[in-house]
Amino acid sequence: MSAYLDWAATALPDRAILTEALESSLGLFGNPSSVHAPGKAARNAIESARATVARTLAVKAESVYFTSGGTESNHLPMLSLLQRPVRGSIAISAIEHPSITEQARMLELSGWKPLVIPVTKEGFVTPEAVLATIKDDTAFVAVMAVNNETGAVQPIADIAQCLLRLPAGRKKPHFHVDAVQAAGKIPLALSLPGIDSASISAHKLGGPRGIGCLYLARRLESFIRGGGQESGIRPGTENLAGILALARALERHSAPEGAISVPTGQEGAREAMARLIEGIARLGTATVVPASRTARDERFSPYVLQCTNARIPGEVLVRALSDRGVYISTGSACSAKKKGRPVLQAMHLAPDAQQNAFRVSIGNETTAADIDCFLSALADVFSAM
Amino acid sequence: MSAYLDWAATALPDRAILTEALESSLGLFGNPSSVHAPGKAARNAIESARATVARTLAVKAESVYFTSGGTESNHLPMLSLLQRPVRGSIAISAIEHPSITEQARMLELSGWKPLVIPVTKEGFVTPEAVLATIKDDTAFVAVMAVNNETGAVQPIADIAQCLLRLPAGRKKPHFHVDAVQAAGKIPLALSLPGIDSASISAHKLGGPRGIGCLYLARRLESFIRGGGQESGIRPGTENLAGILALARALERHSAPEGAISVPTGQEGAREAMARLIEGIARLGTATVVPASRTARDERFSPYVLQCTNARIPGEVLVRALSDRGVYISTGSACSAKKKGRPVLQAMHLAPDAQQNAFRVSIGNETTAADIDCFLSALADVFSAM
Repeated sequence: MSAYLDWAATALPDRAILTEALESSLGLFGNPSSVHAPGKAARNAIESARATVARTLAVKAESVYFTSGGTESNHLPMLSLLQRPVRGSIAISAIEHPSITEQARMLELSGWKPLVIPVTKEGFVTPEAVLATIKDDTAFVAVMAVNNETGAVQPIADIAQCLLRLPAGRKKPHFHVDAVQAAGKIPLALSLPGIDSASISAHKLGGPRGIGCLYLARRLESFIRGGGQESGIRPGTENLAGILALARALERHSAPEGAISVPTGQEGAREAMARLIEGIARLGTATVVPASRTARDERFSPYVLQCTNARIPGEVLVRALSDRGVYISTGSACSAKKKGRPVLQAMHLAPDAQQNAFRVSIGNETTAADIDCFLSALADVFSAM
Repeated sequence: MSAYLDWAATALPDRAILTEALESSLGLFGNPSSVHAPGKAARNAIESARATVARTLAVKAESVYFTSGGTESNHLPMLSLLQRPVRGSIAISAIEHPSITEQARMLELSGWKPLVIPVTKEGFVTPEAVLATIKDDTAFVAVMAVNNETGAVQPIADIAQCLLRLPAGRKKPHFHVDAVQAAGKIPLALSLPGIDSASISAHKLGGPRGIGCLYLARRLESFIRGGGQESGIRPGTENLAGILALARALERHSAPEGAISVPTGQEGAREAMARLIEGIARLGTATVVPASRTARDERFSPYVLQCTNARIPGEVLVRALSDRGVYISTGSACSAKKKGRPVLQAMHLAPDAQQNAFRVSIGNETTAADIDCFLSALADVFSAM
């Protein structure tokens, strides 16, 4: 028995999508910037994929720019600040991905002052907290749509609204939404007024690693320059196989309903998550984080669950489960090497609870048997240690 | 009859390499940063690919960092300058790729002064020109190993040498070499003292688009931050399929001989290039650029040829040949949308000759029949126009 429950780190790859994208790309071998027939064929395929991505996200095709993944999509709007002649501040929620928090430290070296937006004990960024943090000179605000460690769905629509209603004379900051754990997993309305950019990654949806896209409500002046690809927003020869696969992966996970991109296959995940939370409660050795989260709690993504326990360090638990063929993580894979758990710290979780925390994350294909396999292995680890 | 002769824009994909890499990556689905068994398996595959890349390039494994391609590899060393507390100047050859020249303009906005290293009329950067351009405060020098439009092989070893021998009290600038058109195509000794970084792209060698690597003689402080992947040099979940394919593509094209990475399959290209240059001379309608280039001229890569003609604009010629199933380009695909030909301008080519210029570039699989097909189509275009 084996169970992969680390989908938030990376989803199990969709063989059909990846194989089909590679096969298509072999025929579309031209450089999309080339003016000859193979170049034009590649260009047309990219524009068709862009239209598909835009349709599933319920946004305009010209607002979608292909990138090398979530990290680069998070970087591009931040780095564009370096073009501005006057420095100011940037407000980053306390629970952002390292590609935002670590890059903010680099912007600080360039004269931008980072401000941290605190979260509630349950891990939510409130519009009030955003308003209390930003200053007159805040040019950029970043709040992710779904936290990658707790699954907490952030009120990005309300935050966008409140940023639009700043007192007269105050300029609205650029509002960036890391939607890497949200796209195809929760209803998402990126085209809402007030949201200026958003990041999406293919490998969280069964697509390949190394491809993602950036939603931009309006063009920005990119600081990253080169051959002018992606309308000057993201240079470099386009990753055609990746682009085709990203479009198909998004299409498989979501569909537009008016201005909202709605996930289409999350029933399985909802059932699996409820079974998981109920099973953990029954075992009694671990608890969910935050403790108030219920089995079908709509404040959280049904794909990500954070837990903790009183006895075993998260890292030890992850390895012990791996030895039993069950694959989970402590927190973000991107933070795996770092000491400490900034997200849980921001939620004021006790230090012991932080150290003993672990994340279980699932996908649309996760079955009841996978959950039971995990619960049984978890019980086994606790009885063995 | 059809002939693809735009390999410098992108090589024909190597189906076996791409298919095998995808198949392996489907089994190695874990996030390489995850500590569980599938994560470790993915990590091991990346480190094994890194060792392969390093071996073929005759450099140390710890000096190879995977990136999203040539553009990003060119950017990382340039952007790291933004970390420095004191600004100075950067010296860029007049014939660099747009990912260097355009990014230099952005560094200028951040207080770095760009200096342009001129080239000879034949398109070569001399060590003397580098020395005459750099100043006491020059922190970065970029000279590509093989020019992407003319194929001119640049004396990077001599330039590295002269940068090491600056008068006492002058600090050696970081020397970056864009080796995108050189790796696997000409002998390359990246580990030479004085070369600090170099860029390589997979899709110029039959590998996938969206993957490349950066050679770094010594670690640098990356300005681009996130999850700490690639030892903190390049963040973002690693593109495993791409990395495996890059390693195999490099391995197919080159092998180490001592400290030099030597191309292993260029006999075909040498023959095809000689046939091409001789054929063009026989037709008499077009001339090679620079005019001094001979059929087996070792000053040039046997993979890239620039030509011009007295009658037909390059762009018209490219389209007319495309209609006949023959695919070439004017210059760099990455410059296709821009007016003007900066590389030819730097060589002081007459404006008409610049406008009427075109590039023919080949690969190891290019056959005599491909060359003859091109020559025949070229003759046809000239007789029809």
